[in-house]
Amino acid sequence: MAFKISVSPDSPFTLDNIPFGVISTESNPQPRCATALGDYAIDLAAYWKDRTYAQLKGYRSLYAIFNQPSLNEFAALDSAIRSDVRTYLATEFAAGNIPERCAIPLKSVKLHLPMTIGGYVDFACSLEHCKNCAALTGGTISKNFYYAPLVYNGRTSSIVPSPEPVRRPHGILYDPETKQPTFCPSKNMDYELEMGCFISKPVLMGERISVENAANHIFGFVLLNDWSARDLQGFEMNPLGPFHSKGFGTSISPWIVTLDALLPFSCKPWHDHTGTEFEHQRHPDQTKASFDIRLEVTLLRNGVSHKITTSNLSYLYWTPYQQVAHYALAGCGLETGDLLGTGTITGESKNELGCLFEATLNGAKPIELANGDRLGFLKDGDEIILGASCGGGEGQPRLGFGECRGIILPAV
Amino acid sequence: MAFKISVSPDSPFTLDNIPFGVISTESNPQPRCATALGDYAIDLAAYWKDRTYAQLKGYRSLYAIFNQPSLNEFAALDSAIRSDVRTYLATEFAAGNIPERCAIPLKSVKLHLPMTIGGYVDFACSLEHCKNCAALTGGTISKNFYYAPLVYNGRTSSIVPSPEPVRRPHGILYDPETKQPTFCPSKNMDYELEMGCFISKPVLMGERISVENAANHIFGFVLLNDWSARDLQGFEMNPLGPFHSKGFGTSISPWIVTLDALLPFSCKPWHDHTGTEFEHQRHPDQTKASFDIRLEVTLLRNGVSHKITTSNLSYLYWTPYQQVAHYALAGCGLETGDLLGTGTITGESKNELGCLFEATLNGAKPIELANGDRLGFLKDGDEIILGASCGGGEGQPRLGFGECRGIILPAV
Repeated sequence: MAFKISVSPDSPFTLDNIPFGVISTESNPQPRCATALGDYAIDLAAYWKDRTYAQLKGYRSLYAIFNQPSLNEFAALDSAIRSDVRTYLATEFAAGNIPERCAIPLKSVKLHLPMTIGGYVDFACSLEHCKNCAALTGGTISKNFYYAPLVYNGRTSSIVPSPEPVRRPHGILYDPETKQPTFCPSKNMDYELEMGCFISKPVLMGERISVENAANHIFGFVLLNDWSARDLQGFEMNPLGPFHSKGFGTSISPWIVTLDALLPFSCKPWHDHTGTEFEHQRHPDQTKASFDIRLEVTLLRNGVSHKITTSNLSYLYWTPYQQVAHYALAGCGLETGDLLGTGTITGESKNELGCLFEATLNGAKPIELANGDRLGFLKDGDEIILGASCGGGEGQPRLGFGECRGIILPAV
Repeated sequence: MAFKISVSPDSPFTLDNIPFGVISTESNPQPRCATALGDYAIDLAAYWKDRTYAQLKGYRSLYAIFNQPSLNEFAALDSAIRSDVRTYLATEFAAGNIPERCAIPLKSVKLHLPMTIGGYVDFACSLEHCKNCAALTGGTISKNFYYAPLVYNGRTSSIVPSPEPVRRPHGILYDPETKQPTFCPSKNMDYELEMGCFISKPVLMGERISVENAANHIFGFVLLNDWSARDLQGFEMNPLGPFHSKGFGTSISPWIVTLDALLPFSCKPWHDHTGTEFEHQRHPDQTKASFDIRLEVTLLRNGVSHKITTSNLSYLYWTPYQQVAHYALAGCGLETGDLLGTGTITGESKNELGCLFEATLNGAKPIELANGDRLGFLKDGDEIILGASCGGGEGQPRLGFGECRGIILPAV
């Protein structure tokens, strides 16, 4: 039996989207690959079980590729094949050809990490964010920002899929009163509004790639919350960069929106620094160098929802393509499933600050919420929900990313 | 047929050692686990193929555990079982009970990475190294050094087993003449004399461990060369720490010397800072807090061998146990196969400097080699060989680590 899924106007999972994720259900706890449409997950292992896919000569069957607990093997396929598969699914779904046994209400699926993540790196590529942070720590933005995307290696094993909670970490911080190092739970818990970019085709160790070629190595994007303990960060940053202040947890949205789906939303980056960058960082077409992805952050506190910021991916000074090219620059190699965090995405306006460190001036000036409550850093029980969407104008395609949410659990 | 292997006085692989590694051979290219004795590797999959091991009730057979391309499953076993297996092997080997089919001359085996490495972190825990580096970059050692081991996340995918070569990376550096950022191959290639510590039993996400308990999570140690491009490091260090300047390659010695084998060489750390550390960092017995492991570095240039430095693991201000406890402090969890680099191990004497950045004052004062050659930073074709050994005095046990070597290939 086949049926047609109707997509409500506020669903992120439109026919323009066809994202990829990994699901399990109570009746089938084995994680496997899926896509999402409207209020349904479509089990892609079940979908391809009795089908052949002519274009896939010489490869394993799509059933074998999707009947796995990660999308790595699918992502490693040639990009033309992945595009074909996505287009095929969208066309069949539009025609209502969805076998009922493959469609599972989203509310009854458990979502897993979509990929087996080898390396995780996190960038700092928003000029506004870096300027704001430098000012708040009594410095100025470092000169290297303008010549290459700033980046550090993160902690892969602490990446969790939304909506898993995150626990307030213990750590060493300078006591605000005594200025002496103290070991205690972090008091300055923050979120960071970022996106994540998953690598598809590997880059061999020792090889570099151009910005133009970076698209061939991008599978797709998710939302990413780089939870940060600002007081631990203040203690440990110098000279080796962030470690425990970030490594206790990083949340991502579980559905990967493919590069293909995002290409219609290509746009000029907000900052045009063409000509000041090294040649290996030059975009062949500046008008398609970034993406117009609208971002927003909601705080859920005591059952009350507060929209606390908005932003846009295109605000990044260094684009995702430039980040991928920079990642491979020294020959470390990229692997399928490597994850790049874009860094906090902050805009010019005071309503576009991508973390509380900036928005509250390191806690000194709490945000006044609509109900009179005040938001400094995050309290236990606070929940942060990142959202993102593209298009939706007259005659435009439209898609969303779903939620990246996480609640702060008390320290133990 | 069984035979007895005689161990020459200069072999690192004594009956006191029984290290673990992963080998393959021309006739059997399937990587599997092995130990080493004298000039032989003992194939542990072949060894356990037709044996039963009574103590292993409820576990998979040792054959299944060792017939794998990594030691992760063995390392994850209870430490008492691992100790039993090692003692059993040493006893049998001493009695000459080595089936001939299991013994393969070391010169005809290929050595692989011994474990599947999830997370790789690198510490900076030598007070002398950090003071020297701070002075050379015009600063002073940061206050946090004295309160917690300094550490950053490294690039897991670029870890290679000795004797794989390492390629000189391209990157962005400040041109020494113009002081402007330039994209070119690194000119200031350096090694760093470190050891690496592999995690056995996992630490669950959200949990912490004490220094006393850290031993339960340590599988064993290798030599580690944290190759560094000092000019790329100078460009990128501020504010997020090292990335490309380290991520192009890290070499480790392929045989893991177990914690059990090293316990007889437990000793007092060179620095006694008992009482100044946080309670969770306090060693229950300071006389057994570190290890007396003698280290040395040899440069091979144009066929001539030069011993360029010596050092000792016990010089570290923060011990490996304290590093493991610190790694788990914020709840990121540890996984079997996680690798901790100790950081450069430098001593007080000018013959005990663990990298060329220190030994040559950032290249300003090259080392005069015995044959009149001068050593600033590393040239293409230079080979660095790290070595380590323990004991060997009258009536003492004795072991070595084998070599951690790597040659610098020219940039492409």
